[in-house]
Amino acid sequence: MTAAQGPVAIAVHGGAGTLDPSALTPEKEAAYRSVLSTAVRRGHAVLAAGGSAIDAVETAVRVLEDTPLFNAGRGSVFTAEGTHEMDAAIMQGNDLRAGAVASVQNVKNPVGLARLVMEKTDHVILSGWGAFEFAHQQKVALEDDEYFFDQLRHDQWQEVRGSTEVRLDHSTGEKKFGTVGAVALDAHGHLAAATSTGGMTNKRFQRIGDSPVIGAGTYANDATCAISCTGNGEAFLRAVAAHDVHALMLYKGLSLEEAVHIVVHEKLPPLDGEGGLIAVDKNGRIVLDFNCIGMYRARIDAEGEWVGIFR
Amino acid sequence: MTAAQGPVAIAVHGGAGTLDPSALTPEKEAAYRSVLSTAVRRGHAVLAAGGSAIDAVETAVRVLEDTPLFNAGRGSVFTAEGTHEMDAAIMQGNDLRAGAVASVQNVKNPVGLARLVMEKTDHVILSGWGAFEFAHQQKVALEDDEYFFDQLRHDQWQEVRGSTEVRLDHSTGEKKFGTVGAVALDAHGHLAAATSTGGMTNKRFQRIGDSPVIGAGTYANDATCAISCTGNGEAFLRAVAAHDVHALMLYKGLSLEEAVHIVVHEKLPPLDGEGGLIAVDKNGRIVLDFNCIGMYRARIDAEGEWVGIFR
Repeated sequence: MTAAQGPVAIAVHGGAGTLDPSALTPEKEAAYRSVLSTAVRRGHAVLAAGGSAIDAVETAVRVLEDTPLFNAGRGSVFTAEGTHEMDAAIMQGNDLRAGAVASVQNVKNPVGLARLVMEKTDHVILSGWGAFEFAHQQKVALEDDEYFFDQLRHDQWQEVRGSTEVRLDHSTGEKKFGTVGAVALDAHGHLAAATSTGGMTNKRFQRIGDSPVIGAGTYANDATCAISCTGNGEAFLRAVAAHDVHALMLYKGLSLEEAVHIVVHEKLPPLDGEGGLIAVDKNGRIVLDFNCIGMYRARIDAEGEWVGIFR
Repeated sequence: MTAAQGPVAIAVHGGAGTLDPSALTPEKEAAYRSVLSTAVRRGHAVLAAGGSAIDAVETAVRVLEDTPLFNAGRGSVFTAEGTHEMDAAIMQGNDLRAGAVASVQNVKNPVGLARLVMEKTDHVILSGWGAFEFAHQQKVALEDDEYFFDQLRHDQWQEVRGSTEVRLDHSTGEKKFGTVGAVALDAHGHLAAATSTGGMTNKRFQRIGDSPVIGAGTYANDATCAISCTGNGEAFLRAVAAHDVHALMLYKGLSLEEAVHIVVHEKLPPLDGEGGLIAVDKNGRIVLDFNCIGMYRARIDAEGEWVGIFR
């Protein structure tokens, strides 16, 4: 490993949506802030030790997958069949390598499996039972259905079970929500992004959202920035949201802040694209922006650590 | 339907790769040219009658899916399990609506199913058994495994069966290859794109390529162009190839020809991105470009009909 030289920066998110501030008790808020802080600190520790951006984002996302507080990994919502189907992606900006899994079940840390897709296969996206078979072959940690059982998520599912209604994880005020993600710049000037989600409550038909799609929910390119999105996945897919931020910087010369603002506040809303994204550029500038009431988020950069939920 | 006013244009492809010219007998070449011509003419007839670009691309792609000559629909290659898993996507440029299916089996025309995802659901991508369940519910035409059986595809599979080798459909000279796709501009100024594929011979793990991914293998936006890609899917995913053409036009002001050239000849090759794409812009200008020996392709525009295989 070469000596660390440049600035480092990392940000994480735990989802965005129409959270009701009055429904968030001080105890709940403290719990969210605590795990966001833990995630961003663990990722930052990797960077501070001269580690890579890809290791940092994987480390941070694993923390967020391991808590039942967010809709990813352990806290994933129930599908229409009562199962948990998870999506995740990871990408590194130095060589544009990427890996992703879609609609995978029983994998403890989908972000880790996405990393193995990137490193151990010639593919980018594996899905369904095929992704599970690959997980088994790679001997990643699997968990039985009880591990993913959570009373609140189960109650959310019971409310809409048997109907054709699907529910975004952030569509009710007082309930947990949150696709999770992380973006990082390491001291070697490399960027990386990772995203992980349990999708929508009562989803059917093995729907795939934006999270595992390179360019939509997840993107990293050392020439510009690293991005992880959260929100109404279909809109982010149609907007090719993460790649659009990159393109606005690369081809129009916009700053990260300007490019993110256009995508979050101008491009996504006409497509019913409620949500937000976290981003870091090659200079370590972090932008955390959203077009809804709140986004669980935290960052550590040159200005120190900061954790936020509402505006 | 308002009266048709502007120019119309349509192009189709049947895959790109390292085809060996000496292996293509006059009889085979005539068969390929005939079906490409039929597809582009059927699509053009829709446009000439004042129909929509989305109807035109679906019509053209159905013709290419119904022949065993190309790797899509009926001619899809065998997976490692001896099944046929197909991907398809469709997108319309006026409102950026899109639909896609990934790893779906036994559906006669995956492009039609992708269109139903766009029109009948709130989702963009359905996958695996979920996509099949949706197909069954929508009562689309299903076919049993015999329909998809083709001796040449079966022989290709036997050669690599039991190994971990996967084979791109265009990686051997004298054999059939070809993801298929279509792009069109209608007289109302709207653009659309569609792509359909059977993926890679002996593929495993329900791998998803670029074809069903909006922004990677398929993209349409009335502001710029409509694109359908073919080639090494992983590279097109990592390059977010179709959206990159759009972004180069929108943000740098490049022509369609310039934007396509950058993506096909500068962006994709460093990622091992062998292949090509077809594109049409909002003025009816068609570009058919590739970085390999050949691409099965045809177009009808203001200059009339043209069909080609090699450079």
